[in-house]
Amino acid sequence: MYSIGLDFGTNSVRSLLLDLNYGKEIASAVFEYKSGEKGIITSKTNPYQARQNPADYLESMSESIINLIASAKKLGINSEEISGIGVAATASTPLPTDETLTPLGLIEKFQNNPNAFAWLWKDHTSTKEADEITNLAKKEKPYYIDNCGGSYSSEWFFSKIFHCLKADPEVFEAAFTWMELCDFIPAALCGIKDNKNLKRSVCGAGHKAMYQNPHGLPEKDFLEKLAPEMAVLRERLYTEVSLLDDVAGFLSDEWAKRLGLPVGIPVAVGGIDAHVGAIGSGIEDNLLIKNLGTSSCDILITSNKTITAIEGIAGVVPESVLPRFTGIEAGQAAVGDLFNWYVSKVLKRDVSSHQELTEQASKLKAGESGLLALDWNNGNRNILADQKLTGLILGQTTQTTDYEIYRALIEASAFGALSIINRLEESDNIKIDRVRNCGGIANKNPMVMQIYANILGRPMEVVDNSQTVALGAAIMGGFTALKNSGKNITIAELQKRSCRVNEKVYYPDLESAKIYAKLYNIYKLLHDSFGKENSEMYSVMKDLLEIKIKETSAD
Amino acid sequence: MYSIGLDFGTNSVRSLLLDLNYGKEIASAVFEYKSGEKGIITSKTNPYQARQNPADYLESMSESIINLIASAKKLGINSEEISGIGVAATASTPLPTDETLTPLGLIEKFQNNPNAFAWLWKDHTSTKEADEITNLAKKEKPYYIDNCGGSYSSEWFFSKIFHCLKADPEVFEAAFTWMELCDFIPAALCGIKDNKNLKRSVCGAGHKAMYQNPHGLPEKDFLEKLAPEMAVLRERLYTEVSLLDDVAGFLSDEWAKRLGLPVGIPVAVGGIDAHVGAIGSGIEDNLLIKNLGTSSCDILITSNKTITAIEGIAGVVPESVLPRFTGIEAGQAAVGDLFNWYVSKVLKRDVSSHQELTEQASKLKAGESGLLALDWNNGNRNILADQKLTGLILGQTTQTTDYEIYRALIEASAFGALSIINRLEESDNIKIDRVRNCGGIANKNPMVMQIYANILGRPMEVVDNSQTVALGAAIMGGFTALKNSGKNITIAELQKRSCRVNEKVYYPDLESAKIYAKLYNIYKLLHDSFGKENSEMYSVMKDLLEIKIKETSAD
Repeated sequence: MYSIGLDFGTNSVRSLLLDLNYGKEIASAVFEYKSGEKGIITSKTNPYQARQNPADYLESMSESIINLIASAKKLGINSEEISGIGVAATASTPLPTDETLTPLGLIEKFQNNPNAFAWLWKDHTSTKEADEITNLAKKEKPYYIDNCGGSYSSEWFFSKIFHCLKADPEVFEAAFTWMELCDFIPAALCGIKDNKNLKRSVCGAGHKAMYQNPHGLPEKDFLEKLAPEMAVLRERLYTEVSLLDDVAGFLSDEWAKRLGLPVGIPVAVGGIDAHVGAIGSGIEDNLLIKNLGTSSCDILITSNKTITAIEGIAGVVPESVLPRFTGIEAGQAAVGDLFNWYVSKVLKRDVSSHQELTEQASKLKAGESGLLALDWNNGNRNILADQKLTGLILGQTTQTTDYEIYRALIEASAFGALSIINRLEESDNIKIDRVRNCGGIANKNPMVMQIYANILGRPMEVVDNSQTVALGAAIMGGFTALKNSGKNITIAELQKRSCRVNEKVYYPDLESAKIYAKLYNIYKLLHDSFGKENSEMYSVMKDLLEIKIKETSAD
Repeated sequence: MYSIGLDFGTNSVRSLLLDLNYGKEIASAVFEYKSGEKGIITSKTNPYQARQNPADYLESMSESIINLIASAKKLGINSEEISGIGVAATASTPLPTDETLTPLGLIEKFQNNPNAFAWLWKDHTSTKEADEITNLAKKEKPYYIDNCGGSYSSEWFFSKIFHCLKADPEVFEAAFTWMELCDFIPAALCGIKDNKNLKRSVCGAGHKAMYQNPHGLPEKDFLEKLAPEMAVLRERLYTEVSLLDDVAGFLSDEWAKRLGLPVGIPVAVGGIDAHVGAIGSGIEDNLLIKNLGTSSCDILITSNKTITAIEGIAGVVPESVLPRFTGIEAGQAAVGDLFNWYVSKVLKRDVSSHQELTEQASKLKAGESGLLALDWNNGNRNILADQKLTGLILGQTTQTTDYEIYRALIEASAFGALSIINRLEESDNIKIDRVRNCGGIANKNPMVMQIYANILGRPMEVVDNSQTVALGAAIMGGFTALKNSGKNITIAELQKRSCRVNEKVYYPDLESAKIYAKLYNIYKLLHDSFGKENSEMYSVMKDLLEIKIKETSAD
């Protein structure tokens, strides 16, 4: 038996075929979106716009799966042996649909209107609306946003819908409902045409739409205060959510024919890519999965059910990653971004310089550079949750070198990571003994991993797989398939079979760890001084940013 | 009538011929020292050693003057028309001599012993002794060091002599007395063989040897506590000092013959190069002269006699630059050093990049980068007088560019300069309305000067002369000559005749100045937080330095 995992990324769809008996990846195929710039419909007049054409999702998915099946066929695998599909997608990427759940962007009237398309996660047109929602929640229902770090983002579901109401009331009016991309794909594959039969994923609901038990989505009187239309829309959204181990539906005749797959195989409830990627990385109780890319995304699950919110942590949602656990999401706004910034914008060198700088920096001992940096060049996502913070580096002498600064930035990202772990562990019954890393940096740069081990004071495991999201989706598709065919298996067993970790584990060097413990105390002093209210330094970065924004816009 | 000015620099002697009637520089000649590395006798085992062979001074001076006279002859000037000599030298550069004032380094027994040579200003072998002297002064005679910023330097007279006593008692025993280089040269030229006839310059005494009225050098019981030998030596040092407008003596037969100069022309009392350079830059009451080189040296004279010490200011000595004024010396440890560090050690680019970075940075407005830096990469010389401070830069985003950082470092040096001016102006009756800049940066980089004008909030004048030290020496030599021949002229008149300032004066741009005033407040907050005791951040840089030193030395 085989399953397909689908990963709807920012620029393309990846599909992956998993052998469920051996947990082996058989083949994968990527197909890019056709519209816009690398699949993103931008705007000449509004730099914050980032939309996607829903037709691209379906077409690229189709091409990707057809290619995948062709590859499988060459290996002697018959598409009849494929028994389930799992789906992961970027989030929050909501799209408006009509009453038959057809995306408005596919309807002739709206097919050239980006407001009727999917609003990609990184669309930032809705900052004003995000502020309105945050302020209203703080005033009326603070617990709505307690579990998402105390501030509702412009990237999220209701900010975008609310902005659509203001910017393009015609689209808002035409929308029967709005769906997250990870809910739309399974519905489309299964030919679900009625909102009543649509499964909504707990991930999108809990992390992006303030869905909480027992009341569900934000209550009517709350939405009413934003705009009466928002309150009316609530009736056409949803009241219940589904977990990732649930079946969203069964593959429709139409799609089975188009893809060359068996009719009626189960399609799992979709999930947010970071969460599904954590499943593909082998997430388990109290094992922290760190995805180190341009930014970091940290996913943790805990069997501790008493935790409902953690101050400064981006998301805490019951059963959001895996059933029976509480899913916790955190992260740092700049990791690879920080190192790349330094190499490309400051040193003005090409990508190959990372290796040279790493070679030189790896000869340094902890503390030898005398430098300390704050990793806030993109603001602080957790645990201060403050975008209006900026980078800092200190300790320079006239002997300080380029590679010492490079290392200090890596150390800063590790200190930032430790501050998140420490905050998580302040919660009762959370104890993170192991950290498993995935993403480009984890596999490419052993020095970074060794510094992380020394600073986090824990062994660093590295995932031996660059497609953890598609793999996680295939695992969930496979789990659904096996359950559907009456086979008794747990998700954990399927993960054990499929998720691979490098043999090489990075263990802390005790001498370095001791020095880094001292440096972390200094980092924390700077962190709290510049990052916390009531400190004398709190205004420094904000005042500078304000002047910068004023002077830049005065051009 | 003509005068010669001599500038004994770190690597060479420069001589300059000045036409006293027109204040015109006729010719100049440079001759490098022969010994060691560019004239400096270093040590393979002790990186802090920097000595100079006294034979080099005399030989290079001789060659330099002979070349100068040859050039003058070509222009139709007869050496008989040369009527006076002035001398400037690095300081504190003390050298031990025998009873006839012959440097020990010229005596056969010691001619290969660097401890018997001149101890160049940047010799740092005597840090322990400097600490001992500082600590003893703080305990017993705090006013000894009040006027030199509260700490006695390892670069200064008594630290070096005291270190010689410990490191090489044979040289210490053989030394009848010790002289500053700026006192030795006039004595040598005039054939003065007796300590009783030797004039000691107020500059060296007051700024480098704790000489104060009414007691003179540190008292016997103080030196006794350092070492009994130091107290005994005091008898063979000096009790009186001479001002720069005084005559040190008259050119000896021997040197007149050797140089081809008239016998018996007056030689002025020598001075510290920075002070004499300020004279050559046209220093006058409440005009601040800033010499912007790798570090900055700020010289101010004030007719306000009540000022005896200013907290955090390196030196306040009555009549040290010019008679009837109080001479004040301050400075920043890194200016050009800071910019060069960034270009060569961080960006790893060559010197020509300064121009490119300047071009890009000059397009930025005040506050536009959002960056703020502290200029402490070499520690803070004034007004915190703390070597254990280091650099800082903050406000970085992932869009921050190389040239924005470059500009932030320039701005930091200007903020540091303003903090010195503000401290000076806190003293009664000091009001600095104009600032006159000299040194390489002042002439080479108009953007730096414009930023300085905007940040210091004052017009920036620039000296149109790259040899202000030799010119200042020639002015003092000329003044002595004119006085000696019965001509009535003031130093100020001679300066007016000789010192040239660029037509281009940089005036503050009021819009930028307003923004910089805001940024300075933030600079000052960081400055005081990281630099002043009792602040929470005070330990940060010191702790990091301590760890750095420990880890580096553990290699």
